[in-house]
Amino acid sequence: MPPTRPASSKTKTQGTTTRGDDRQAQLLQIACRFFARYGYKGTSLRDIAEEANITKAALYYHFPNKNSLYERIVLEGLRVLVDEVTEATSHAQTAREKLHAFMMTTAEIYVRDPDLWLAGSNAFWVDEDSVPRKAAIDLRDRYEQLLRSCISLGVQTGEFKDVDPAITGRVVLSMINGLSRWFRPQGPLTIAQVIEQYTGILLAGIGSGKTP
Amino acid sequence: MPPTRPASSKTKTQGTTTRGDDRQAQLLQIACRFFARYGYKGTSLRDIAEEANITKAALYYHFPNKNSLYERIVLEGLRVLVDEVTEATSHAQTAREKLHAFMMTTAEIYVRDPDLWLAGSNAFWVDEDSVPRKAAIDLRDRYEQLLRSCISLGVQTGEFKDVDPAITGRVVLSMINGLSRWFRPQGPLTIAQVIEQYTGILLAGIGSGKTP
Repeated sequence: MPPTRPASSKTKTQGTTTRGDDRQAQLLQIACRFFARYGYKGTSLRDIAEEANITKAALYYHFPNKNSLYERIVLEGLRVLVDEVTEATSHAQTAREKLHAFMMTTAEIYVRDPDLWLAGSNAFWVDEDSVPRKAAIDLRDRYEQLLRSCISLGVQTGEFKDVDPAITGRVVLSMINGLSRWFRPQGPLTIAQVIEQYTGILLAGIGSGKTP
Repeated sequence: MPPTRPASSKTKTQGTTTRGDDRQAQLLQIACRFFARYGYKGTSLRDIAEEANITKAALYYHFPNKNSLYERIVLEGLRVLVDEVTEATSHAQTAREKLHAFMMTTAEIYVRDPDLWLAGSNAFWVDEDSVPRKAAIDLRDRYEQLLRSCISLGVQTGEFKDVDPAITGRVVLSMINGLSRWFRPQGPLTIAQVIEQYTGILLAGIGSGKTP
């Protein structure tokens, strides 16, 4: 599944030519695909240069080392995720609606660009050798905090039972992360149908049966 | 987290010396750790030989190629999983108890040997280059079929709502697979406490409220 990287137009650098921008976007796309499949350690700059059909020196011109490439991809993926999920949950009223919006938005971002998602997601657990920088950790913390606040809200309003927001958040993230293992857009269910069933089970599991 | 590989004593080959068996067990343990972290493509025989402090030729003596090493690890991991889960669910009476036994046994196997679990689990999705052989696919199918049959049983007995066993099975597997991303044995909760909370949410989500 090739990455579509709709956000790559945002990555243009002032002062480089359009052609250089295209090349940089292409390199980011290839690097993202490798990082998604093989992680940081399993990917070499040689792999990326070979796939892009350029020399390693030409690759260094755009990205001085593997880590700069990796951080660029991870940070971009996390920013898109945090921004869109924040926006979607802020428009929802009840805790149930907020939790549904959180899951649906995250799943849609995954389907739109699975490689970007996986590269970002893998950054925090597969690769012990690539310590995520503070900026990435901060973004991930904001994302997880947003999820826990949706759950805490439901506990406060009485929509949800008195569940632990941390462990319930793990359930939600596990369900969403698991999509990359089995969901295929060409399969029998759309992502919206899957999320409907997922939230149906989850909200029945944690719901109090009361409305807020 | 070093692999404990309690099942490696089963892998002894007739005709080799005990010392050769120890060496083989050590090589399997190292290979398992690499496969768990970096997948098939991200691991080289050179990595394994260097870590074991032997030559590549000495490694070839035990394992003629990377694939033979990988298959040995994946098949062993899957056999342990299928055998223990089959045993545990067969002793449970109701569908709720069977589903709980399925989740608890799988989680315990993960905690006992995270690397062996991850190497087996990764075999089916991370590595497009290492096509799992029929034996591995058969074992995975038996495992997933067992899970779906626990869920179908609950639908039949009326313990569960009329949920889709396939999608509900995805929820269960996602919850369990997600453990490798966050659960640490030295953390505040034991694996049994986590599974209690997980099954609490899940069974409330799919349960009908009736007893069988």
